[in-house]
Amino acid sequence: MNAEAKLENLIKRVKPPDNASREAARRRLDSLTKPRGSLGALEDLAAQIAGIRGEAIPRIKDKAIIIMAADHGVTARGVSLYPQEVTRQMALNFAAGGAAINVLSRMAGARVVIVDMGVNGGLPSYEGIACKMIDFGTGDMSAGPAMSREQAVDALLAGAEVVENELAAGLDIFGTGDMGIGNTTSASAITSAMTGKAAREVTGRGTGIGDEQLEHKIKIIEQSLAVNRPDPSDAIGVLQKVGGFEIGGLAGAMIAGAANRIPVVIDGFISGAAALIAAGICPQIKNHLIAAHLSAERGHAACLEHLGLRPLLELDLRLGEGTGAALGIFLAECSVNLMRDMATFKGAGVSDIPGEGT
Amino acid sequence: MNAEAKLENLIKRVKPPDNASREAARRRLDSLTKPRGSLGALEDLAAQIAGIRGEAIPRIKDKAIIIMAADHGVTARGVSLYPQEVTRQMALNFAAGGAAINVLSRMAGARVVIVDMGVNGGLPSYEGIACKMIDFGTGDMSAGPAMSREQAVDALLAGAEVVENELAAGLDIFGTGDMGIGNTTSASAITSAMTGKAAREVTGRGTGIGDEQLEHKIKIIEQSLAVNRPDPSDAIGVLQKVGGFEIGGLAGAMIAGAANRIPVVIDGFISGAAALIAAGICPQIKNHLIAAHLSAERGHAACLEHLGLRPLLELDLRLGEGTGAALGIFLAECSVNLMRDMATFKGAGVSDIPGEGT
Repeated sequence: MNAEAKLENLIKRVKPPDNASREAARRRLDSLTKPRGSLGALEDLAAQIAGIRGEAIPRIKDKAIIIMAADHGVTARGVSLYPQEVTRQMALNFAAGGAAINVLSRMAGARVVIVDMGVNGGLPSYEGIACKMIDFGTGDMSAGPAMSREQAVDALLAGAEVVENELAAGLDIFGTGDMGIGNTTSASAITSAMTGKAAREVTGRGTGIGDEQLEHKIKIIEQSLAVNRPDPSDAIGVLQKVGGFEIGGLAGAMIAGAANRIPVVIDGFISGAAALIAAGICPQIKNHLIAAHLSAERGHAACLEHLGLRPLLELDLRLGEGTGAALGIFLAECSVNLMRDMATFKGAGVSDIPGEGT
Repeated sequence: MNAEAKLENLIKRVKPPDNASREAARRRLDSLTKPRGSLGALEDLAAQIAGIRGEAIPRIKDKAIIIMAADHGVTARGVSLYPQEVTRQMALNFAAGGAAINVLSRMAGARVVIVDMGVNGGLPSYEGIACKMIDFGTGDMSAGPAMSREQAVDALLAGAEVVENELAAGLDIFGTGDMGIGNTTSASAITSAMTGKAAREVTGRGTGIGDEQLEHKIKIIEQSLAVNRPDPSDAIGVLQKVGGFEIGGLAGAMIAGAANRIPVVIDGFISGAAALIAAGICPQIKNHLIAAHLSAERGHAACLEHLGLRPLLELDLRLGEGTGAALGIFLAECSVNLMRDMATFKGAGVSDIPGEGT
């Protein structure tokens, strides 16, 4: 089977969430010792996860953060504060356990899965670094397409494969994370292409660039869009023209999560751009995504708005790596454990309001 | 020593946070492998906790949720959806481990300390239920003061005592929680008195009352304020006139937390009203408080605004019990663990931006 056909098959496996399980979850939530609806967004989250999993009272035990790392040719144009080598250095930092995502994953009880989607210089195959390298970084999108169409499809399938491999461990939920110097430039170009908003409206300071460099970054993105003319009705084409290997990998992982009824907790701006690609390829995926947080990076709000997702958290994070997703996984586990472990009015002998209860 | 003098002594022990520790925390955060400031509110939180604790890199290990329960005479006026007996039933549910706060405390690794501040019918002295009962519920505040001035001071001191007892266990942080049918009515009256806003602006649906009952509740609060004429410059008097024993206990616990350099994570509207009382008695306490979340209950936003606190979470919670505080404690532990466990640029061999780093 060729790669595009494989992708088609995966997309066909994505089914809408199960309404009956979602409704059963709502009834369960209403029977618990609390005023109805008083757990707000946590109740919505529990019901959403029940629908995705197709179980009234799902369990979240095996949790992972999947971090995709890759380099971007456009960094040669001076769009970031940090040198390109930091992508590789940070991937090694993840493997050594010293990055923010390692700390927050430990707090959430999630394992960290590091994937080399195309880091310049390559990465050693330490335990915990999966090699799915497409190439040593993308081409410079300001001069032409970032990758070939074949590479874009390969990136999507490689990301899907990572999730399918993790299923063997009994995966119940995963969060998406990214590392790639220059990838907010690519994410802004994708967001502009997919939402129709001007580059300026969806471009931010990334790692913390100043005003002058921000103007330069916007010009590079405008140039990339002018050179490549991405068509929002062809999301694979958008990925090919202005995307990144890690963004393709994340989009593929999201589709595979949905196909396997695994809730996907998406992180910040890079994950948001990947979700735009994933939803462009497979629109029904939106119901399977949980937006962990609203990033401080300009452009992320446009992603979430376009996807119709409401973020759980708003903590001015702008780090990526899956840091917000780790916090989101914690909230997801809280939400299902409330449903699983709280006493009912009846069971605890607590008086319910007249006319309610079972 | 009489009770008011004891309270004065406690208040005198509240010192401002330590600037040097806060600045050292900021420097530490800037040395870690992430773009500077990219952890947003988590960095502010870590620095705040460092200042409160007086340590550059504090540790959060021993965590507690302190839930104060009490009854309110005003429930006789039909302000709540649930009967008064639910206060006692829910306190027993906490002791049995079946309430939402038990589930979320387990998720946050916090122990639950249940305090009977004045539950009608009393509570058995199970392990985990501390008896600090002031009386079997307050008087009906719509007909006169909810309690005597002596009782108000006793409630504050009793709450402080609970915290001082917990210090022996090595307490590093605690969250505040409440249970008391009718207590949003009291909290709205306190908020109106302390902020000067009209009762209508700060009164919500509590456990979920309909439009007609809400109008009735607002009238009862207006009547309580008219009968008692609480003076915002005398916060103890406000507590006495329109407060509750659990609200007094929580305010006392907050002051004791600040006096002992323990960060206090405040929950929703009831804790917010208690914080208004605490800050009225001891204005410098504000810097020691961490607002876990913005409750969906109308009136809470006015509390936080008056206190100048920015909430970490906004999840439409309106349950109380300390449920939002448990999530806030998790974020607090995340924030200090990031500071403690992340690698530095130097240590991990990650290239820093030119001109920065040590």
